[in-house]
Amino acid sequence: MKPSDLARATGALLPDARRLFAELRASSTDGDGVTREAYGPRETAAQDVVARFARAEGLAVEHDRAANLVISLPGRSADAPFIAVGSHLDSVPCGGNYDGAAGVIAGVLALALLKRVPIAPPRTVRLLALRGEESAWFGKSWIGSHALLGLLADADLAQRRTDSGRTLADHLRDAGADIEAIRAREPLLRAASVAAFLELHIEQGPVLEAAGLPLGIVTSIYGNLRHRRIRCGGEAAHAGATPRGLRRDAVIAVADFVMRLDARWSEWLAHGRQITVTHGMVATDPHEHAISRVAGTVDFSLEIRAEDEATLRAFHEAARAEAAAVGVERGVAFEFDTPIVNLPAAMDAAWIERLAACCEEERIPVHPMPSGAGHDAAVFAHAGVPTAMLFIRNQFGSHNSREDMQLADFQLGLGVLVRVLLAPAARAC
Amino acid sequence: MKPSDLARATGALLPDARRLFAELRASSTDGDGVTREAYGPRETAAQDVVARFARAEGLAVEHDRAANLVISLPGRSADAPFIAVGSHLDSVPCGGNYDGAAGVIAGVLALALLKRVPIAPPRTVRLLALRGEESAWFGKSWIGSHALLGLLADADLAQRRTDSGRTLADHLRDAGADIEAIRAREPLLRAASVAAFLELHIEQGPVLEAAGLPLGIVTSIYGNLRHRRIRCGGEAAHAGATPRGLRRDAVIAVADFVMRLDARWSEWLAHGRQITVTHGMVATDPHEHAISRVAGTVDFSLEIRAEDEATLRAFHEAARAEAAAVGVERGVAFEFDTPIVNLPAAMDAAWIERLAACCEEERIPVHPMPSGAGHDAAVFAHAGVPTAMLFIRNQFGSHNSREDMQLADFQLGLGVLVRVLLAPAARAC
Repeated sequence: MKPSDLARATGALLPDARRLFAELRASSTDGDGVTREAYGPRETAAQDVVARFARAEGLAVEHDRAANLVISLPGRSADAPFIAVGSHLDSVPCGGNYDGAAGVIAGVLALALLKRVPIAPPRTVRLLALRGEESAWFGKSWIGSHALLGLLADADLAQRRTDSGRTLADHLRDAGADIEAIRAREPLLRAASVAAFLELHIEQGPVLEAAGLPLGIVTSIYGNLRHRRIRCGGEAAHAGATPRGLRRDAVIAVADFVMRLDARWSEWLAHGRQITVTHGMVATDPHEHAISRVAGTVDFSLEIRAEDEATLRAFHEAARAEAAAVGVERGVAFEFDTPIVNLPAAMDAAWIERLAACCEEERIPVHPMPSGAGHDAAVFAHAGVPTAMLFIRNQFGSHNSREDMQLADFQLGLGVLVRVLLAPAARAC
Repeated sequence: MKPSDLARATGALLPDARRLFAELRASSTDGDGVTREAYGPRETAAQDVVARFARAEGLAVEHDRAANLVISLPGRSADAPFIAVGSHLDSVPCGGNYDGAAGVIAGVLALALLKRVPIAPPRTVRLLALRGEESAWFGKSWIGSHALLGLLADADLAQRRTDSGRTLADHLRDAGADIEAIRAREPLLRAASVAAFLELHIEQGPVLEAAGLPLGIVTSIYGNLRHRRIRCGGEAAHAGATPRGLRRDAVIAVADFVMRLDARWSEWLAHGRQITVTHGMVATDPHEHAISRVAGTVDFSLEIRAEDEATLRAFHEAARAEAAAVGVERGVAFEFDTPIVNLPAAMDAAWIERLAACCEEERIPVHPMPSGAGHDAAVFAHAGVPTAMLFIRNQFGSHNSREDMQLADFQLGLGVLVRVLLAPAARAC
C-alpha cells in the first residue's frame, strides 16, 4: 500500500474513530472524566461499543474465557501463530478517555480498514480488548492479560475492588470468565500461538509533546514495586492536652517519611538512576480522625518504578530504612503490606526495527523511548511473546480527566499499525 | 462537713459512680472505645442513664430548650442566681468514657450526696449535662452551651455532621431543641441568672500524671483556631509517565507544609511561645486516588492552640505564609476554608481561690495549670459568668479509646466539688 493510499484509507476512518471515542466517553462519563471499572458495567459497555462496530464491519467477534473481547481478521496463513494487537478498556477512576481505549480503537479500525479494501494480512490478526489493566481497582495490574496466560495467583483473586469491596474472583465470574480454569492457572491462550503482541497506547507523559513528535517506539517498560497500604501507627491523643514532645503523631511521621523519600529520589536522579516515586493515596482513619485529635494511624501507598530490577529493589530497601529511622525518631511503627512487584520488560528488537521502518516509510521521525508506565505488553513480553509498543503523543498527561489526544496523531499511529500488520513477518515492511 | 465525713459520704457513692460509668460505656461502646455522637442516639442514651439515676435520687430532672439535660437541687436562697455545675456527654468517635462524662457524673453524684444527707446548699445548684461539645461532629465546638446562651450563628446551624451529612439545625430539631429560638439567637439561659459555672473534667493530658498529683485547678483555657479543611490542589498525573520535575504532587506539597509547620512549632516552643499544632485529618480524594496516580488534591485540617489570641493569630499568619511558599515552589495552591476561632478564656480568680481553699481543706496539693484543651467553661466565661474548672488526673490521654481515670482520683474531685458548692458564695470554704 502506497503511503498516499494508506493516508487516504486511515483518513476515511477518522469519522468512525471520532464516533467510537464519543460513544466510549458517553457510556462511561462520571461528570468530569470517565470511569470504567475493571470488570464493571462501564468496562462492559465499552466492549459493547467496540463489538457493535466490529460486527457492522463484518469482523468476527467473540469473548475469550477471561471475558476479554476478541475481534479477528483471518490471515493468508490461517494455521500460523497469529498477531495480537490490543490494549485495555478499563480506566482509572475519573480518568481520561484515551488511556487504553486508543489502542483498542486503533486495533478495530486497522482490522476494519483491511476488511474494507479487502486485504488479507500475512497472518491472522486478533484484537484483544483486555479488561482490568489498571491497578486502581484491585491493586493488581494487567489482570486481563494475566488471566489469559494463566498467571493469576489465589492472592490476586482474593483482592477486593476498592469501590465494591467484592473479590476479583467474584467480579471475574460475573463478567462471564471461566473462573475454575483461571484459578487452576490454565493458560487460556498459549503464548506459543501468538507470533507477536503489538500495543498502541497514548504516551501518558509529556515527553513526545515536549519533543514535538507525534509517535514514540517503546524500547522497554519500567518495572514497578507497589505497596498498596503502608500503615503508620502512632498514638491517638488529645490535640490540646498533649505536648509536642509526648506525641506519637502519625501524620507528622508520614510527612517526614514522604519528604525523606522525596529527597532520596532527587539524589538518585542526580546520580542518573531513573526512578519515579509516588504516594497516590494517603488517609487518616475516617472512623476516628478529628480536627482536635492527634492522628493515631495513617494509611498510605507507595509505588516505585525503575528500568531495571536492581534499582527497584535498592530504592525499596532505602525506603524501608527511612521508615525504620522515622519509626525510632518519632515513636511510630510502619507496617508494610506484601509488595506487588512487576518486573521491567524489554521490547522485541526485530519488532522495534519493523516499527521504525514503517515510521520511516510514512516519513515520521523515529523516536525510541522507555515507558515509565506499565502495560499489558510487559505481561506478554515476560511470557516470551515478541512484543512491541507504539506511543502516541498526548496532552495533559493521563490518569486524570484532562487527558487529551489529537486525532491527527492517532491517525499516524493507525497508519503505522496497519503497515506493520501487512509486513511479512520475517522482515521489515 | 468535716473532711472525714465528706470522705465517707463520697466513698458511699463510689458503687454508684462505678455503675453509672459502666452503663454509659455499655450504651455507647463501639467495640474498642465509646462513640457518643453529638445530638445522636448514643448521646441521648447517656443523658437517659444520668436522668434515671437522678430521678431515683429524687432530684428534679428536665431538658432545657437546647435539649441539654438539667438536674436541679434547690438552695436556701431559691431566688438568687444559681450555681451551674456541668460538662458534656458527647464523645469524639472511638473516644474514651471519661471525657466530659466524668464532670456530669460528678455533678449528679454531688447533688445526690447533698440530697441524701440532706443539706440544702446556699444557692440552688443545677447540673448541666451539655450536648455537642466535641468539634469532631460539626466542626463547631461547645454547641450545647452556645445554643443555651444564644450564640449559634446561621453558619454553625448549617454545618453538617461528619457521619450523617445532616445539618446541625436538623439534628437539634430532632433532639427536641427549640430551633426557632436558637436561630433567633434568643438566650435560653440568661448569663446573669448564673452565679458561677463550675466544670470538673479529666485533664486529657499527661501533666498531672507526670507530676504525681490527683487534681489541677485551671487558670485559663487555651484558645484555638481551626481550619476544618484546607485543600491543596496540584495536578493529577500518571505516576509512571510523569517525571519528577513536571509533577505538581499534592501529597508531597502537603508533607512539605506539615514539616515546615512542625519546624516552626519547635522554634516557637524554644522561644517560650506555648502552642500546639495538629493535623488530625488528611486524605487524598477517595473517588479518584490510586496507587499509580500522582494525587491532584489533598484535604487536611489544621488546628492551632495558644494561651493568648495574639500568639494564635501570629502562628496562623506564619502557616498561611508557609502555604504560600510551598505553593510557589511546588506549583500547587492551598485553599483555606473560613477559620473557626475560639478565644482563650480566663478563669475567675475568686473561684480559683475557693477551689484552692477546698483542696487545702482536703489536704490535696493545689496545682494551678492552664488547659490546652477547650471546654464549655470557656463559653460561660466569655459570656461573663464567673467560671472555674477542676482537672482530674487521667491516664493515656484522651480522644482515644485507651483513655482511663482512677476512681480514687475521681472521688477526690467529687469531694472538692461538694465542698465548694457548700461554701458561702462570698468567701472561701
